[in-house]
Amino acid sequence: MTTELDLTLTRRVAASPATVYRCWTEPELLKQFFAPKPGRTVDAKLDVRPGGAFYTKMVFEEYGEIESEGCYLIVEPAKRLVFTDCLSADFRPSAQPFFTADLNFIETEEGCEYNVIARHASAESVKRHEEMGFHEGWGTVARQMAEIAEAIERG
Amino acid sequence: MTTELDLTLTRRVAASPATVYRCWTEPELLKQFFAPKPGRTVDAKLDVRPGGAFYTKMVFEEYGEIESEGCYLIVEPAKRLVFTDCLSADFRPSAQPFFTADLNFIETEEGCEYNVIARHASAESVKRHEEMGFHEGWGTVARQMAEIAEAIERG
Repeated sequence: MTTELDLTLTRRVAASPATVYRCWTEPELLKQFFAPKPGRTVDAKLDVRPGGAFYTKMVFEEYGEIESEGCYLIVEPAKRLVFTDCLSADFRPSAQPFFTADLNFIETEEGCEYNVIARHASAESVKRHEEMGFHEGWGTVARQMAEIAEAIERG
Repeated sequence: MTTELDLTLTRRVAASPATVYRCWTEPELLKQFFAPKPGRTVDAKLDVRPGGAFYTKMVFEEYGEIESEGCYLIVEPAKRLVFTDCLSADFRPSAQPFFTADLNFIETEEGCEYNVIARHASAESVKRHEEMGFHEGWGTVARQMAEIAEAIERG
């Protein structure tokens, strides 16, 4: 279920839900698509279990380094991955809460429907996320992710 | 694992982990102990599953009504219950994030060791929670809870 406090994005990928899930949970795969190019993801530590922490560091020529930290909430292989920056390792409250990402990997005839819901506390947070470029950023990342997942399945 | 950003409380209860867990997850039981007396818990809605919301309303003569809302994170019957006010239903970020409660129900020869870890984002939040009366409040609630759990097992 979504509300006006959510931003959403959907993309069809010609790869199985299991492969798309792998792209999100294996650091060496995540690093290949997580930053919109020409940005680069130079570090990724993913403790993929409820209460486990994630850490990523991206580098952009125009912005410098951007680090992201958070906590996994729901871990359902090949199906769903939910994480939030409102919490850190062991579900500890974080200093800079902003949004929860609810990623769903739905099996289709062609492969997978990849569905992102970004949940926010307020209309102000939604607006800020839109202004930060949610649709372009997550859209580019979804395209880059699809390329990796499809290349894996082509072997 | 705990750190200086945690507040903790432990109490031995002469009742099984399953019964103590019931006290925390059944609204009609929770309402009997959740507010330090003479405070009263007049409402409790508990959607006990990861991503489910909890809502409680307590009434105190000196403070008036106090409502609490949050989200369950870990639900392990008779073993562990983790919830946070940093998130609401469906893991949506909340407007007033403060702490995560990690309740553990550990089987002992006499019944159950009930162990609370309250996790915070900062030393300021820890201090605030202490000044709000964490130790007295949660201590009184633990005693009240033990009385209910022990009465259930006496039948």
